[in-house]
Amino acid sequence: MAEDAKKLYEELIEKRRKAALLGSAGSILGWDERTYMPRGGVEHRANQMALISGMAHEMFTAPQIGELLSKLEDSDLVKDRSSAEAVNIREIRRSYDKDTKLPRELVEEISSTTTKAQGIWQEARKKADFSIFKDILGKVFELNFRVAEAYGYEKDPYDALLDDYEPHATTEEVARVFAGLRDDLVPFVEKIKDSGKHPDMSIIENDYDIHRQKLFAKAASAAIGFDYTKGRLDETTHPFCTGIGYGDTRILTRYNPKHFGQAFFGVIHESGHGIYEQGLRKDENFGLPMGQSVSLGIHESQSLCWENIISRGKPFWKHFFPRAQQTYPEVLGDVKFDDFYFAINDVRPSFIRVDADEVTYCLHILLRFEIEQGIIHKEIKVADIPGIWNEKFTEYFGITPPDDAQGCLQDIHWSMGALGYFPTYALGNLYAAQFYAKALEEMPNLHNEFAQGDFSSLKKWLNEKIHFQGKRYPATELVKEVTGKPLSHKPFMEYLEKKFSPLYLD
Amino acid sequence: MAEDAKKLYEELIEKRRKAALLGSAGSILGWDERTYMPRGGVEHRANQMALISGMAHEMFTAPQIGELLSKLEDSDLVKDRSSAEAVNIREIRRSYDKDTKLPRELVEEISSTTTKAQGIWQEARKKADFSIFKDILGKVFELNFRVAEAYGYEKDPYDALLDDYEPHATTEEVARVFAGLRDDLVPFVEKIKDSGKHPDMSIIENDYDIHRQKLFAKAASAAIGFDYTKGRLDETTHPFCTGIGYGDTRILTRYNPKHFGQAFFGVIHESGHGIYEQGLRKDENFGLPMGQSVSLGIHESQSLCWENIISRGKPFWKHFFPRAQQTYPEVLGDVKFDDFYFAINDVRPSFIRVDADEVTYCLHILLRFEIEQGIIHKEIKVADIPGIWNEKFTEYFGITPPDDAQGCLQDIHWSMGALGYFPTYALGNLYAAQFYAKALEEMPNLHNEFAQGDFSSLKKWLNEKIHFQGKRYPATELVKEVTGKPLSHKPFMEYLEKKFSPLYLD
Repeated sequence: MAEDAKKLYEELIEKRRKAALLGSAGSILGWDERTYMPRGGVEHRANQMALISGMAHEMFTAPQIGELLSKLEDSDLVKDRSSAEAVNIREIRRSYDKDTKLPRELVEEISSTTTKAQGIWQEARKKADFSIFKDILGKVFELNFRVAEAYGYEKDPYDALLDDYEPHATTEEVARVFAGLRDDLVPFVEKIKDSGKHPDMSIIENDYDIHRQKLFAKAASAAIGFDYTKGRLDETTHPFCTGIGYGDTRILTRYNPKHFGQAFFGVIHESGHGIYEQGLRKDENFGLPMGQSVSLGIHESQSLCWENIISRGKPFWKHFFPRAQQTYPEVLGDVKFDDFYFAINDVRPSFIRVDADEVTYCLHILLRFEIEQGIIHKEIKVADIPGIWNEKFTEYFGITPPDDAQGCLQDIHWSMGALGYFPTYALGNLYAAQFYAKALEEMPNLHNEFAQGDFSSLKKWLNEKIHFQGKRYPATELVKEVTGKPLSHKPFMEYLEKKFSPLYLD
Repeated sequence: MAEDAKKLYEELIEKRRKAALLGSAGSILGWDERTYMPRGGVEHRANQMALISGMAHEMFTAPQIGELLSKLEDSDLVKDRSSAEAVNIREIRRSYDKDTKLPRELVEEISSTTTKAQGIWQEARKKADFSIFKDILGKVFELNFRVAEAYGYEKDPYDALLDDYEPHATTEEVARVFAGLRDDLVPFVEKIKDSGKHPDMSIIENDYDIHRQKLFAKAASAAIGFDYTKGRLDETTHPFCTGIGYGDTRILTRYNPKHFGQAFFGVIHESGHGIYEQGLRKDENFGLPMGQSVSLGIHESQSLCWENIISRGKPFWKHFFPRAQQTYPEVLGDVKFDDFYFAINDVRPSFIRVDADEVTYCLHILLRFEIEQGIIHKEIKVADIPGIWNEKFTEYFGITPPDDAQGCLQDIHWSMGALGYFPTYALGNLYAAQFYAKALEEMPNLHNEFAQGDFSSLKKWLNEKIHFQGKRYPATELVKEVTGKPLSHKPFMEYLEKKFSPLYLD
């Protein structure tokens, strides 16, 4: 009997691996499309990718997988809830149910509507005219309601949407944590704004030779632990990280010859994602939940931990600033450490989320989350979004967007049908701070090690506590396992206050 | 009834296209493996490629394809033998039969044996010791006999093997043409050798900055007609060209900083393959025989035409030599045109095929073809290969290989199970010369155009006469369609004599 279950389980994971293996070929095609593909290849590439994703979807949703799951869910293999087998069975069931619950017509309608919506959004943003975008956006939201109904939910339709990006999270819990964050963060940002202090930005907004940027960023990325024998760094328009499979994780960035930090911190950010992907034990767990990341929020916690907490921190630059001076002697040769450090930690309210600093960033998310809530709970009409956006923006940032291009039209997400995605960015900040506070408690010597250029203890800690766990724990449980406490905005606020008060408020 | 056939035909080509589309994803993975893949990704890549090629093979050999073919072969669609429909049906049948004729056990035995054989061959070559390789080579040949039996043949088992690379060709015909070539070429090589004349090779064996080599080679490649909006050039260890699909053809080369020509002529050679691939009308014919190359011999005729006849010719350098002098003033600034031209056309008997000049190259092939014949006709024993190799080599080249690494162990082909492949290299030379003689007859102004840097007439001619035809005609018929005559070694010998007599014999 136990033998039987073992055999069925092997059969299940074999099918999963095969589907994931095919899907990972699609990842290479996607990477190639965004790096080296000649532009004439765009149509053929679209055909290849549609075929592969269709075939992989068919393999993931094959009825035999459902049958195997039903048998295995009655077996002894699921008794120990945190065993690899139980986790894999639980999470394969989750994704199988989600993948099979959406009717084909709905999937096709979403695909055609969002393709159209993205085109219209681009035009609307260009013209800074929300009225062009309003109707199709309403249709996209309508489709999101239908998705939520198809998935099903207990309390809140937003739960069903959130679950695609942050599995097992509940709207109620996220809203509670975000409300606390808002209450502390808004006045903190206001105080910084009122301080009137500003770094000398000409230090980092200056001439930085791209060739040297590449070498410097790559060296730092390797130093924090991104393994270049199992990965690579390339150029692209919209930076990202893609984990292809065991031994192959790729990060991408873009270079700005007039800015020190855009590529540098971008590379460290993607390296944080990459270190997570490389730590997922895909040798034995490729294609299985135990070899997959927990959620977008946890993924983002890894990139933000390395980018913001580590690579915008003082200990990191104790090691790297002299090297930066050697690399760019014309610009940095005579710059003082403190002035450089202040410049890379410039805080100021601004309209565009993707350009925001780490203090104001979460306010951009809270605003979006609250509007999404209003939409899903039918308290906000689509036509009212621009007005509500600007009102909230003024309340949180103390400045008002001059037009909708710099307001509610700035992000692509809604046009792509992604509702419930934004919160994961803020969750990433909160998880990062809570994890890092614990790491520092357990390894009080970390900052001295960083100052020596040694990041191995932190990487090892993240590997063991988070990466090697795959999807064993949902994010809400993982944070308790690792830090002993449920998610809270407090560690994040404590981190911000400790770091930015000396720069702005003392 | 006609309506029905049309519908069945659409169904057939839809299935073919889908299989080819999946296969072309494998081409990207193969390209990536040989260019950018981090070395840690090798195992995952092998898994991806095995999955994709297995799935594509299953789609190509699906029984429904056989059923559709049987119905279509009785329909009106095949009446006009050179219509696109008839060609596609005929050639899909050919590949379907070949793909389904080999029993699974044989395919697997070939795969495991040749994987082993390649490892042993590498060791044997390194140690210059044929005795290590002998037994497994015998096994590979034995498997080739079984392949020939499984495919079936009328007269000669070699026909069945040759057909994989040069469809529709017969051993008898190839042997006849090659015998004529040998009789004319051996004494011609001897005369050149006896002339004692040699160019000053320090002109091209010198310091050539790799960055400038890339720019110069790419410019020349674009000038002859390789379209970089639908293709690209990258670096790799073993140069090749891969046609992914419509709008995406990739060529690859390697650079030697101590040699002018290795990369340059390599890039032109691969561009010749690339221009053929780009000319295959894959927009409408992707995945169909009408959008595929005729044979390896015809493919090689395109690369060799551009590499040897054009880019090692005088008219080409009338345009490009002044540019080469501007690009490399330190080395070429004071070099005379005639000395440069002589140096890039150095002819001397040498042991290694891949380093051979265009005069002696075919002798390397004739030797291998004759030994393959002997093996397949059971007139040569495996153990006797080294002796026979060296004996023939001495007869054809007037020099004797000092060891088997520079003799019968130099090529990877036999260890990969490729018997019947070598002849296509020589056929490529012969086809190229015969096509080009015809082109020159029809367009007597070609050389003047080349001297102006204009290669568009020749490219257009090759497009229309050869590339756009896909697999409409087998190579043996195509050469008659284009030149009015069957394949002969005469145009090639005339070309060689006209070009090399002034350099060596006058």
